[in-house]
Amino acid sequence: MRNIDWNQAAPGVWKTTIGSPGGWTPLTCLNRRPRTEAMKELPEAALPLSGETIDLRELRAGGSLLSLPLAESEELYGMGLQFMHMNQRGRTRYLRVNSDPKQDTGETHAPVPFLVSGRGYGILVDSARAVTFYCGSALRQHKDAAAEARDRNTDRGWKATPVSDRLEIRLPQEGADVYVFAGPGMQDVVRRYNLFCGGGTLPPRWGLGFWHRVPTLFRDAEVEQEAMEFRARGIPCDVIGLEPGWHSASYPVTYEWDGGRYPDPAGFVSRMRDAGFQVNLWEHPYVSPESALYGSMRELSGSYSVWGGLAPDYTLEAARKLYADQHEREHVSLGVSGYKLDECDGSELTRNAWMFPAHAEFPSGHDGEQMRQLYGLLLQDVTDRLYRGKNRRTYGLVRASNAGASNLPYVLYSDLYDHRQFVRALCNASFAGLLWCPEVRRADSVEDWIRRMQTVCFSPLAMLNAWGDGVKPWSYPEAEAIIRHYIRLRMRLLPYLYTVFAEYEEKGIPPFQAMPLVLADEMQEQGKREETGGSSFGTGKSESGFNTAEGAYGKQAGREWDDQFCIGRDLLVAPLFAGETGRDILLPGGVWYEAETGARHAGGQVVHVDCPLERLPLFVREGAIIPMMPALDHVPEGQTEIPVEMVHFGTEPGEGLLYDDDGETFDFEKGGGSWLKVRVAIAQGGGFTGTAEKGGPACRYNITGWRFGQTRLPQE
Amino acid sequence: MRNIDWNQAAPGVWKTTIGSPGGWTPLTCLNRRPRTEAMKELPEAALPLSGETIDLRELRAGGSLLSLPLAESEELYGMGLQFMHMNQRGRTRYLRVNSDPKQDTGETHAPVPFLVSGRGYGILVDSARAVTFYCGSALRQHKDAAAEARDRNTDRGWKATPVSDRLEIRLPQEGADVYVFAGPGMQDVVRRYNLFCGGGTLPPRWGLGFWHRVPTLFRDAEVEQEAMEFRARGIPCDVIGLEPGWHSASYPVTYEWDGGRYPDPAGFVSRMRDAGFQVNLWEHPYVSPESALYGSMRELSGSYSVWGGLAPDYTLEAARKLYADQHEREHVSLGVSGYKLDECDGSELTRNAWMFPAHAEFPSGHDGEQMRQLYGLLLQDVTDRLYRGKNRRTYGLVRASNAGASNLPYVLYSDLYDHRQFVRALCNASFAGLLWCPEVRRADSVEDWIRRMQTVCFSPLAMLNAWGDGVKPWSYPEAEAIIRHYIRLRMRLLPYLYTVFAEYEEKGIPPFQAMPLVLADEMQEQGKREETGGSSFGTGKSESGFNTAEGAYGKQAGREWDDQFCIGRDLLVAPLFAGETGRDILLPGGVWYEAETGARHAGGQVVHVDCPLERLPLFVREGAIIPMMPALDHVPEGQTEIPVEMVHFGTEPGEGLLYDDDGETFDFEKGGGSWLKVRVAIAQGGGFTGTAEKGGPACRYNITGWRFGQTRLPQE
Repeated sequence: MRNIDWNQAAPGVWKTTIGSPGGWTPLTCLNRRPRTEAMKELPEAALPLSGETIDLRELRAGGSLLSLPLAESEELYGMGLQFMHMNQRGRTRYLRVNSDPKQDTGETHAPVPFLVSGRGYGILVDSARAVTFYCGSALRQHKDAAAEARDRNTDRGWKATPVSDRLEIRLPQEGADVYVFAGPGMQDVVRRYNLFCGGGTLPPRWGLGFWHRVPTLFRDAEVEQEAMEFRARGIPCDVIGLEPGWHSASYPVTYEWDGGRYPDPAGFVSRMRDAGFQVNLWEHPYVSPESALYGSMRELSGSYSVWGGLAPDYTLEAARKLYADQHEREHVSLGVSGYKLDECDGSELTRNAWMFPAHAEFPSGHDGEQMRQLYGLLLQDVTDRLYRGKNRRTYGLVRASNAGASNLPYVLYSDLYDHRQFVRALCNASFAGLLWCPEVRRADSVEDWIRRMQTVCFSPLAMLNAWGDGVKPWSYPEAEAIIRHYIRLRMRLLPYLYTVFAEYEEKGIPPFQAMPLVLADEMQEQGKREETGGSSFGTGKSESGFNTAEGAYGKQAGREWDDQFCIGRDLLVAPLFAGETGRDILLPGGVWYEAETGARHAGGQVVHVDCPLERLPLFVREGAIIPMMPALDHVPEGQTEIPVEMVHFGTEPGEGLLYDDDGETFDFEKGGGSWLKVRVAIAQGGGFTGTAEKGGPACRYNITGWRFGQTRLPQE
Repeated sequence: MRNIDWNQAAPGVWKTTIGSPGGWTPLTCLNRRPRTEAMKELPEAALPLSGETIDLRELRAGGSLLSLPLAESEELYGMGLQFMHMNQRGRTRYLRVNSDPKQDTGETHAPVPFLVSGRGYGILVDSARAVTFYCGSALRQHKDAAAEARDRNTDRGWKATPVSDRLEIRLPQEGADVYVFAGPGMQDVVRRYNLFCGGGTLPPRWGLGFWHRVPTLFRDAEVEQEAMEFRARGIPCDVIGLEPGWHSASYPVTYEWDGGRYPDPAGFVSRMRDAGFQVNLWEHPYVSPESALYGSMRELSGSYSVWGGLAPDYTLEAARKLYADQHEREHVSLGVSGYKLDECDGSELTRNAWMFPAHAEFPSGHDGEQMRQLYGLLLQDVTDRLYRGKNRRTYGLVRASNAGASNLPYVLYSDLYDHRQFVRALCNASFAGLLWCPEVRRADSVEDWIRRMQTVCFSPLAMLNAWGDGVKPWSYPEAEAIIRHYIRLRMRLLPYLYTVFAEYEEKGIPPFQAMPLVLADEMQEQGKREETGGSSFGTGKSESGFNTAEGAYGKQAGREWDDQFCIGRDLLVAPLFAGETGRDILLPGGVWYEAETGARHAGGQVVHVDCPLERLPLFVREGAIIPMMPALDHVPEGQTEIPVEMVHFGTEPGEGLLYDDDGETFDFEKGGGSWLKVRVAIAQGGGFTGTAEKGGPACRYNITGWRFGQTRLPQE
């Protein structure tokens, strides 16, 4: 066992180096600047776990083991894009990238080695190799271990997995840099992490509109016709995605337009842009021998091919430049808005072994295991920098990520398709600096179709992916009106959504939040108000109370509430799943309104809501001020003014924020953004009065009016 | 890259040492004596692959990579108890023990690092650590790699997994001993492997009777009553298995009888034995604090507990002795016949992390990863030696095995339950020195129940496991007669089965054989007869022809035929699965008879057989001489004479073997076995005549008669 020296790396963040890590890690790969100034705004905090026993021991088989204490009911969250559970206490999480994460092992598309504890601290192992977190799942043999034994023959309390009082982290052979993030609340931990990684991403405004991907072998005219059908039917749409067939050859890919299906790419993209559509291109990292890039990329690629194509070493500047130049010339300069980066997440532990093996060698000296672990980050980074270089924001999709990704303009997706898992992934992403898209690809029934479409409209990226079956929002006549309503509602809520993302960018606050983050934050606030001493961190006296029998919501102990989430502070979304006609919803404290019925609920409890198929349970917090715009066909370009109505909820005064900027460039980083403080107060003589205090230069919003004391969202 | 020096380790077996392996491996753990004399009877063979390029390279991340050439259509079999495929060509097999092997990664209960190539060689990596075989799944970037690329947009021949021309084996960090086994045929390879590991196991004769496991909390009287019901209903049964409830506490276990349910264990076992039942006890390796063993075992155990119990270090003689003495005293001396060794196969990559972690430390100096990999072997070995010490054979069940296990009297099983996977596992076990039990635990329908019961009656261990639901062979009245028929048929075929196992023991011939083993052997024989030059090994000119488009059975290329198998040389079993009313069957060359209808089929082709629910397609080879006994209630003990009828099939003369010994002890190892050569010849004046030439001392069989020229099995 060894003592650990922690050195402060940023406000509320400490670092130690264990072993001799190689130097190429998620954080160094991305090399983002920590947002130190913003971190200083968070509560001051001391080094977590000081005074408690942290062990470090070398392992006989190589590597070392870091061991931390766990309180009895301490919850452990995060560790990337987990599909199976939210609280990982009692489980072993093997954080290796995996393109087909069907088993409950911890492997996933985005295996982020960052854990958030219910006791209000976080721990990050910054490594390009697989790290294993034993989240109280390894029961060390000690004096009292025998007390854990129970007789399964007769004791109904017997558990398949006894829970231990140590968190153990198995570090890679060569060691790793380990970071600890302070709270006091879980939300503070996550914000510190996001800010340390460069802050959250702020998508272009159009990125928050509706997305539609067309069938893979569509040609230009078919795409344009399908796009225009959205306009004809009054269904907003901002982005059309093209699938593999736009390439002259795919799997591996050329990155070159197919001359048959797209004889005039520039004209095609230009016509789409004129009609208000962004064009997003599918690709993956493997270069076809048919590609003009092949010859020059060959010496810059790994020793194993993928589908017969090259796997370039994108740690090499020369490879990045070849890729970026080609993409700039043949797509970006034409107006293409971004990419869907598929299959960056190959692994050996899957059914189809299409990926290069762990022992592949790359010209930079990295091996296949490292390269697989960070391939998604590399591709995100190279495309992000390409667009940054043109002072143009992008927003896209990616299948693979890792630590440090909060600042990257990408949303994860998967070939998995369980609706509940999709919502859970959305929740879990919020602990890990990730965004998740519960894309709709197909449905078992019209009911399933509607429920999935409702969910995706309240997610970081609202997309229908018809690449395989060609389904459209109007494919089921009985569903069309419902789906139109929710796509239009998303558009109307866009000023709120955009503000929520701006808070992600500047303050590190996750735009979509799992319930433990919301509740921990709330209890933290409540603790402050009640002056009961603030943080309970390190005292072991109490935990967040979430999901424990003694907690505030003890009646529902055992339920994870991983099927509902908040968007920003004021909206709560509780998706329904096929087969359900209603559901239980855990409301945080305060008063909440059902946004489409106006029903009022006291929070701090579980409520049951019956919910016909045409409705998704959406709640607004008492006192919230929700900025809303019209359901335009698409986000207007450039300097077009956008009319906004301010909708205030309930019987209490309130305050909020409204963010705006040009929606397209990075000028906001140099002061080009505008924060409006909005406030609703009791007016003299009763009733309410609203004010919006302009806070910056580039405001396209024109506040056209106020609605006070609402209990539901206004009809269109 | 390094040159490899191969040293002959036994006839047709070569060894090399790569790196500095630790010394504790499957082979050294079991320390069985290679059956050198028997190996000399196999065809002489040169070092496989001599003259071809075998690479060995050190990997940057540690460990090394062994790379061998693959011919274009070379099939790769084995690698332990694989459930998902038979031919592993094109797949990556990660050979780590896993208790819940639902994903197609190579992980399994028995991850044997032994591969059998269709070109007629085998390769074993003798290591207690996980080994990865890239079975042509890693496509090295070379001059012609581009030729592998295809356009998925338009080319229907595109494959998710391109297939490479190298077999790559990733060795553990510390290295390993690697063995190569010569052919010329695949059957020779497997036989050499089995003989090198000490030969096959010969179960006690009663082990091949029918087994029934009773519900977990049954008490003595309930067990006896259920057992006697078999007798009353004329359903043979030799073994009754007790589940966790016989322990005074379980999960972890005490190994002590529960005084409430079993107040008089000795009396209970003795009464069962008197009624002709063997008693088999369920257990697992984790010692309860309630066990008298706990105190003295504590210092001899690993640093992590399992369910609050100890995980003893059974590499330590002291731990083995404590365990063996307790088991001898409290079970074996009472007459208990053997064990079901559950949960030796814990892993981190599973849903419930109940197992000790990879970094657990054991007093012997081994770590958790090694111990998990070999825990099943250790428990098999300690119980095997316990019974050997009493000159009494045992036969039992185990959930975990590894290389070198052919000589161990254990049969594998799983918590998985797919019927097709169960048959595939039975097939695949034959490449790896393993035995598999497709136990019946429950059913989706009476049809499913019957089909599963039919299958299990033609397996290495015919068992109904009613631990959970208490189902009995007579639970479904409409099924009882069919099931009785097949259990009785198994008993009637027991002399044949026992002979087949004796050939496993002495000659290493797998008693149950996957079709590629049968066909490769057959083509080998045919090649010899046609004097076309014998072995094609190393020439790359041709492969076994199995599962390739150009092969003898080319019409069914792509189908694995992993749903049928042979028992010995003369019986072929083709199970049906719920929902089927008939099936295609691949018959080896020659002529085959449907054993229950007498239908005659020309072999060397695929035939279709319609098959009502009461019938399992069972085929007998032309010229076969099948020894059959009456369907006794159970295998008679001691010196009781057993009447046997010799049943000859078809219109051709034939010859065969009949093995016998005392059925219970190891005296056969000292010449106590008896081989009868049986022969059917054309009699003078037409018709047939049969002779049986006695070959040894202890023969209990009394040949009561001959049936010649049969086309079906005689009715009872």
